[in-house]
Amino acid sequence: MHGILSNPGKASGPLAGTLVANLFFEDSTRTRTSFSVAAKRLGGDTVDLMGFASSVNKGETLVDTSLNVEAMGVDAIVIRAKQSGAAAMIARACKVPVINAGDGKHEHPTQGLLDTYTLAEAHGRLDDFDLRGLRVLIVGDIASSRVARSAIIGMSALGARVVCVGPPGLAPGGIRSLGCDVSHDLDAHLSKADAVMMLRMQFERHDGDTDKAGDRKSSVIASVREYREGYALTGARAERLKPACVVMHPGPMNRGIEIDGDVADGPRTVILRQVTNGVAVRMAVLAACVRRSMSSST
Amino acid sequence: MHGILSNPGKASGPLAGTLVANLFFEDSTRTRTSFSVAAKRLGGDTVDLMGFASSVNKGETLVDTSLNVEAMGVDAIVIRAKQSGAAAMIARACKVPVINAGDGKHEHPTQGLLDTYTLAEAHGRLDDFDLRGLRVLIVGDIASSRVARSAIIGMSALGARVVCVGPPGLAPGGIRSLGCDVSHDLDAHLSKADAVMMLRMQFERHDGDTDKAGDRKSSVIASVREYREGYALTGARAERLKPACVVMHPGPMNRGIEIDGDVADGPRTVILRQVTNGVAVRMAVLAACVRRSMSSST
Amino acid sequence: MHGILSNPGKASGPLAGTLVANLFFEDSTRTRTSFSVAAKRLGGDTVDLMGFASSVNKGETLVDTSLNVEAMGVDAIVIRAKQSGAAAMIARACKVPVINAGDGKHEHPTQGLLDTYTLAEAHGRLDDFDLRGLRVLIVGDIASSRVARSAIIGMSALGARVVCVGPPGLAPGGIRSLGCDVSHDLDAHLSKADAVMMLRMQFERHDGDTDKAGDRKSSVIASVREYREGYALTGARAERLKPACVVMHPGPMNRGIEIDGDVADGPRTVILRQVTNGVAVRMAVLAACVRRSMSSST
Repeated sequence: MHGILSNPGKASGPLAGTLVANLFFEDSTRTRTSFSVAAKRLGGDTVDLMGFASSVNKGETLVDTSLNVEAMGVDAIVIRAKQSGAAAMIARACKVPVINAGDGKHEHPTQGLLDTYTLAEAHGRLDDFDLRGLRVLIVGDIASSRVARSAIIGMSALGARVVCVGPPGLAPGGIRSLGCDVSHDLDAHLSKADAVMMLRMQFERHDGDTDKAGDRKSSVIASVREYREGYALTGARAERLKPACVVMHPGPMNRGIEIDGDVADGPRTVILRQVTNGVAVRMAVLAACVRRSMSSST
Repeated sequence: MHGILSNPGKASGPLAGTLVANLFFEDSTRTRTSFSVAAKRLGGDTVDLMGFASSVNKGETLVDTSLNVEAMGVDAIVIRAKQSGAAAMIARACKVPVINAGDGKHEHPTQGLLDTYTLAEAHGRLDDFDLRGLRVLIVGDIASSRVARSAIIGMSALGARVVCVGPPGLAPGGIRSLGCDVSHDLDAHLSKADAVMMLRMQFERHDGDTDKAGDRKSSVIASVREYREGYALTGARAERLKPACVVMHPGPMNRGIEIDGDVADGPRTVILRQVTNGVAVRMAVLAACVRRSMSSST
Repeated sequence: MHGILSNPGKASGPLAGTLVANLFFEDSTRTRTSFSVAAKRLGGDTVDLMGFASSVNKGETLVDTSLNVEAMGVDAIVIRAKQSGAAAMIARACKVPVINAGDGKHEHPTQGLLDTYTLAEAHGRLDDFDLRGLRVLIVGDIASSRVARSAIIGMSALGARVVCVGPPGLAPGGIRSLGCDVSHDLDAHLSKADAVMMLRMQFERHDGDTDKAGDRKSSVIASVREYREGYALTGARAERLKPACVVMHPGPMNRGIEIDGDVADGPRTVILRQVTNGVAVRMAVLAACVRRSMSSST
């Protein structure tokens, strides 16, 4: 992982002379920047297209916009959209590689890859990526999380056992179909976990408000205080984790809500490692896609 | 056209080591991206300046802002502004090349060039760019369209005959002064056309609303349904076109309004070819302007 | 100064292969572009991060965001934030160089450097940067101006005498602690000044409104007309300046308010020179910081 990040340079590299379009119908500074850094580290350049959000209302026009971007001569399209399935739809319409940077509540594949990679790295499994025997807790708003879905798919495929934990409204039994277990009792699972991945409480996706006590409210959870009692990774809970268990979070964190600051900054944390690995994973994806595209077009 | 697009690379090219400023007082992701791709394909780099819109209310300050950008040491300024004549005013104030990327309802020269180029390409006239004998229909909201104005100027200059077609409110007789014909009857012209260029119905520029039937309304046209009856390029109308007649649209399209989806995607379409040629034309403009500027400053 | 600006090129230069992150929690197209041009002139590349403003409410999270950007593998962070002290706080948290591009009402160091440099240049002091004997008036809204603070610090350090001039609400006596003089009488100082630096009247920072006469109002000054009578650099006042006195302004100017257009464009002006020197100063800062960071990490 260190090698791929250590030798940047515009004049050479697998993407030298190529242009990657970041077509973000939904804003995400974090993911977009990660892809931009990845492309530039490989010698490529990027163009950001973020102004289309307001003018696109139909899937039909989503494809039109993508075909326009392709027609400008870019070498790959990184797409973020609100509609589940948007990336697949656009990939069918375009000839250049299309990379899904998050489509609605569906998937966020490079996030899943970076989470899976970080898990393997933390437990010394980079040689064969065999994750059998590892138990991962994903905690919080599973139902509306494409991050959770992609992590479940990635980690399970390599043999890890994933348990999704949250209140019934956020962790419904139906997600078992992804190949994970579901539990509503975090404390029952803490001592057996090899990794705990806390999800951001996405108040902005619930129609929440602030109650009299100053707590942020949500239509899905009763109160932040109650949620914390059952599902936050507090300092007290962190003490019950195995010594080798690591703490993950896709960011951005609500410190003091789903995770305590001391835990986020503590010795178990691999949260910033996830960010670093995110660039490396996206470099690998870009290099593989653009190289394959170039050789197939010869 | 293929050669200019096929060999990108930062380390060399006519714009190697140069910086092009995209100074967009009015947002246009599409045009800005096309210029960015063009500059980067030539080995140049770009800086986007899009945050000035709110702070500029006077032409005076428009010039101040441009002089500031020039003083930072950029090699060319691509400008988009709401005021007709803004680009010319700024070009008089600055020493570096200033390229008009659309000024109010006035002109959009590189769009005119790409439309003219695409017409010549579609009819095998790239050898001498002699467009005599070709008849082009430009259909829709001519009056407020800088795209139409620049296309009329470009195509007429090379010998094509342009007929502007639309309801009287959108295609007033006064535009004959640009050297085109004006008609309010699309059906009368279809069978003689060598190209039909459909303009986007710009509801956002009229004070329109949605009527009871769910149609979008406009203060200029009676109803979308009525407009479509007279002026949309439907599948039925497309069947009456000559075999060699091509269909153009500057984008973004309102599918099902000014043009049917089947026609936009059909065998006559050169709409995405316009997009590709747009990058090539902007590369040519940038290369010519920056090279001339560099040799004159020696 | 000419040498550093004259030989750009991506493939080489002190920042070749490096990435500079523009982390702007508060928008500033002008300063951000200046840093971007500087980085690119040195062979580096940039990523702009401007979408975090709305999601950051606490200093705690400001640090989280910065650590995330650092973890992506950038080589330097240029930061603009609303909180005084934000840049220092982030510099303590990060290992990569952090450059302050303006923090609240506190400081704007590269602006101070470019103003100091421009003063030295205008008076032929570039050999030794000894500014003793020079008297500089800084006029206007001193109290809320980080530009003023950084200019006072820079110019005073090299021996210039700075007099801050404004109405008592904008130029309170307390700012003498920075090592400058304070006056409420512009006319008394004009004939002795070697440079007059006019500050922008920042109506947007006062809770102003428009009064009946159409003047913009402010809670700090009585009226624009009254302000102009006492503190604007009018044509009449400019005539009383010494022949060698230069006129400066950090931009953007309110022509006809704190400075008359004729004076801004007149023979004394070094306003655009400030802009050009701004890029050069930022190139020097970036080159020094990134080089030092690279050699210390070996």
